[in-house]
Amino acid sequence: MSKIILAQIDTVAGDIFHNSAKIKETINKAKEKNANMVIFPELALFGYPFGDIFARHKSLIKFQLKELEEIKKLTNNITALVGYVEPTNSENKKPYYNSIAILQNGKQISTVRKKLLPSYCEFNDNRYFEPSQETGEIIEIENERYGIIVCEDGFNDKDFFEHNIYMCDPIEELMKKKPTTIINCSSSPSRARKEQLKHNLLSSIAKKYKVNYIYVNQAGYGDNLCFDGASRIYDLNGNLKLRGKFFEEDFIEAVNFQGKIENIPKGLEQRNEIKDFSLDYFNDLDRTYQTILCGIRGYFRKTGFQKAVLGLSGGLDSSVCAVLLADALGKENVYGISMPTKITSLNSKKDAQILANNLGIHFLEIPINKEIEIFSNELKDIFRQIDAEQYTKSTTFENIQARSRATILWSISNECKFMLPIATSDKSELYIGYATINGDMSGGFAPIADVTKTKLFALADFLNTNRPIKNVIPKNILEKPPGAELKFDEQKGRTVTAEEDNMPYPFLDEIIWFVENRNYGYEELKKHKFKYETNNLISQEQKESWILKFFDKSQKALFKWHILPPSIIVDAKSINITEYHHPIISKYSMIG
Amino acid sequence: MSKIILAQIDTVAGDIFHNSAKIKETINKAKEKNANMVIFPELALFGYPFGDIFARHKSLIKFQLKELEEIKKLTNNITALVGYVEPTNSENKKPYYNSIAILQNGKQISTVRKKLLPSYCEFNDNRYFEPSQETGEIIEIENERYGIIVCEDGFNDKDFFEHNIYMCDPIEELMKKKPTTIINCSSSPSRARKEQLKHNLLSSIAKKYKVNYIYVNQAGYGDNLCFDGASRIYDLNGNLKLRGKFFEEDFIEAVNFQGKIENIPKGLEQRNEIKDFSLDYFNDLDRTYQTILCGIRGYFRKTGFQKAVLGLSGGLDSSVCAVLLADALGKENVYGISMPTKITSLNSKKDAQILANNLGIHFLEIPINKEIEIFSNELKDIFRQIDAEQYTKSTTFENIQARSRATILWSISNECKFMLPIATSDKSELYIGYATINGDMSGGFAPIADVTKTKLFALADFLNTNRPIKNVIPKNILEKPPGAELKFDEQKGRTVTAEEDNMPYPFLDEIIWFVENRNYGYEELKKHKFKYETNNLISQEQKESWILKFFDKSQKALFKWHILPPSIIVDAKSINITEYHHPIISKYSMIG
Repeated sequence: MSKIILAQIDTVAGDIFHNSAKIKETINKAKEKNANMVIFPELALFGYPFGDIFARHKSLIKFQLKELEEIKKLTNNITALVGYVEPTNSENKKPYYNSIAILQNGKQISTVRKKLLPSYCEFNDNRYFEPSQETGEIIEIENERYGIIVCEDGFNDKDFFEHNIYMCDPIEELMKKKPTTIINCSSSPSRARKEQLKHNLLSSIAKKYKVNYIYVNQAGYGDNLCFDGASRIYDLNGNLKLRGKFFEEDFIEAVNFQGKIENIPKGLEQRNEIKDFSLDYFNDLDRTYQTILCGIRGYFRKTGFQKAVLGLSGGLDSSVCAVLLADALGKENVYGISMPTKITSLNSKKDAQILANNLGIHFLEIPINKEIEIFSNELKDIFRQIDAEQYTKSTTFENIQARSRATILWSISNECKFMLPIATSDKSELYIGYATINGDMSGGFAPIADVTKTKLFALADFLNTNRPIKNVIPKNILEKPPGAELKFDEQKGRTVTAEEDNMPYPFLDEIIWFVENRNYGYEELKKHKFKYETNNLISQEQKESWILKFFDKSQKALFKWHILPPSIIVDAKSINITEYHHPIISKYSMIG
Repeated sequence: MSKIILAQIDTVAGDIFHNSAKIKETINKAKEKNANMVIFPELALFGYPFGDIFARHKSLIKFQLKELEEIKKLTNNITALVGYVEPTNSENKKPYYNSIAILQNGKQISTVRKKLLPSYCEFNDNRYFEPSQETGEIIEIENERYGIIVCEDGFNDKDFFEHNIYMCDPIEELMKKKPTTIINCSSSPSRARKEQLKHNLLSSIAKKYKVNYIYVNQAGYGDNLCFDGASRIYDLNGNLKLRGKFFEEDFIEAVNFQGKIENIPKGLEQRNEIKDFSLDYFNDLDRTYQTILCGIRGYFRKTGFQKAVLGLSGGLDSSVCAVLLADALGKENVYGISMPTKITSLNSKKDAQILANNLGIHFLEIPINKEIEIFSNELKDIFRQIDAEQYTKSTTFENIQARSRATILWSISNECKFMLPIATSDKSELYIGYATINGDMSGGFAPIADVTKTKLFALADFLNTNRPIKNVIPKNILEKPPGAELKFDEQKGRTVTAEEDNMPYPFLDEIIWFVENRNYGYEELKKHKFKYETNNLISQEQKESWILKFFDKSQKALFKWHILPPSIIVDAKSINITEYHHPIISKYSMIG
């Protein structure tokens, strides 16, 4: 009988003692369970993602190696695979390998080094590591030949992918050494459409080579990324035989390559990748919800915060944020502040209060009319003295409202222990810069910065339907057109909506999807038939003017993307600087 | 007679038409001057630094290649070396090379591809480019054999450096092809101590191989980086025979490898690298000044802004910023706003006004007592209702002042055309998080974010001495101890100084220097003999507590570094995320 532990742990970059303690505890527990082997994720001991910290703080590597020695001592009667940063100790190489230490009976019997070093999107392995010249490593335990590889080395199958990024397929090479089981130690973040891809790939490799496939993945939040865990085993027919929890730590016991199969987020059981833009987000809503919860919990816990304070406007963004925060942190830890002005509608105030009551979070009201009035009076006087437009530009006045609100939220955060203010900007708004610096885009964390507006509406429906308490978000909030209620239209007798200011959200969100997922530029978008056009008659002129507006506004918004608070990458592509290094001094909208 | 033009141009990433127009104009001008050859910097046509923009906006490469065709047509009777992003057109390679097109008589006669791809600090070449398998390229013009290489390929000489980053030295390989002159096309940012290093290296290579050495470098500002131009030629004895302007575009004519030698920033003529921390910044002040001016001008011009507005507190940071802005943008384009509260001293107000008068910039005063009072009253009420500390924590009140000021600056920016608010935080303060989010660290640009406090004092002296109008910064400002004047000490009857809140700046700045330049951790710093200790008796206990405070505060400040406005890297190392990818979810202060 073979018993293997898939040790799906959560790590903190550079926090060697924390990671090491977790690894030691897990090894001891595995020994108590009489396991033959315990497998940790890629870079488990150093913690991941780590950016440049060991390049600047070199002593961390020393501490790490010392701790590896301690861990080694615990491996009597068990084999442990521990990911770590391994010095190359060679003048002619980059200083480190991305390695797995194979520890057995107090010795490091072998070391597996990563060969394919991803350097795209959120990955920068090439910046730090020397690629291995060898491929994988075989260890034999009780007649089973385990072939061990690191993350990306398992993701370049020539039959599965139409295009390969790398020339070499390490698994193909490894198979020459005739393993009966493949072990892949990974730290792989969750992204839209990735679970379907991962399942299909791993299953097909197991089947193709007639091997068992053990995949161990990190779980939890690191800078802007959520690792979804869900470590798993496929048998030699490609059938799923075991799967750990999604997005949280797990100690997974596999007996003869089988075990419990934990639930998968709703929608993701369907194995077909979505290949086109669709306003039907159903297949991804549960994963989106779980990703954001993992992100909020991880960021708060790892930075030492416990409570969140946010402005409740009675609009969609802040309402969805409030629900997510309550679910992630507990309702008693969320403070919703209504900060109305004269132009805030009575309905909005009421909706905010109903939402807070439904959720059971704290609710307070501070009207900010006086602040606005004083700022405005002082400024009018100044504007007269300089070359200003004297309040003809509405944005100035609008922004004072948003900034006064953020000042109040940050003050509450300053005065209360472990309380973080929340930035409620969404992805559609951020794309076109429809977010106020030091206003709604300011905060200690931005939970929905990678969720577009149309997806947020779908997520709100999902929350109203799928949580134990139904319909926490009042119907009013879901039915009224989005808008920041900062600007009053005298003619229409109501505040201006966001779509009047910009363009319809379904149209905007489709542009975003094609720019991100298909690299469309102005020329391609002009020719593209939008889903929005099937139900709405718009002229080619109108269409082109919206596309132009998108490029113009997104180019001007680059600065705002740079000062976005820490957030969570949710979609397949994002504007998050962890993934997309976007220079401010640039011009990317070549409209010829 | 050979005539060569060193075309030291300034580029914008992805702005193909802009870069191309500049290249075409320069080639035409070179032809008018009957030049044999015109040499552009690395990646001149695409623009640099470009981050991920061509990875996401693929059509830019298409536009670039179309423009290269147009440029080619202009090269009758002249050779032009034009840096560009070259598609590899190979499935088995990364998609692009970092290349130089050698254009002659309407044809691309050859292409040089970069071999060494730097991927440290601000460089990420490995993320984008396939390394060349070949080394450099020889072209023959009028009996001269020119060996052409790209930037980093010239920076790995085995005799010059004690440690080499790469195994191969492309110049050594190139020499086998027997060039008589080396041409290096570069885009190399200015950093502290780099000019001395560069001069010594290039001169020594020319001498070692007995060749002329032509070095062409980009000039101007791109995201957080200033390129210092100063293209140059060394003769085969290693003597400098020509040098272009520092930090600005130049059209440099070399006749028989000789020409005008433009001025070098004061102090940098001294060829010895500074190898230890010193409070004597003299050797680097002129370069610091010129770097910051280049940064301000570049950022404003390239983003379309013309005017700057900043708060004038009568303190060091805002005063130095005001002088730098006036020099960079013209005094008529700078608006200094005094925003005193009740605790602002009369002297500070007066000092701010004197500074503004000396400089001739606009000066306005808006007392913000009323704003503070209203915020405070509203908040007191709220704090009573929640688990808050009820104004026992002074930071809350201090921060409301800073945030109200920023609200006013952003409002002025919103209402006035092309006006950008300035963040005045300095490097020492940012390191320990002594800067207010949405307050003094908020702005559209942060000119002194990479200048430490002790260096700022030296820079202020430099400005008072070396500008045409002497002593613009009042003596008072230079003599009073730094402090934000946000907190009043009742016992002492004055506001608390920054050094009382933190630690002496000379001590703090020495920690920063050793952390950045020597990778010192807590253990090394504890044993280190600080310059501060030679004149001040401090106990080991005091010393260790300051070092601990540094690590504690800088770890907590990571979030602030992430939302720092665009800035200018000045020092050899910085906290700017362009150079140092610092994860927030991390622990780097291993105090064991």
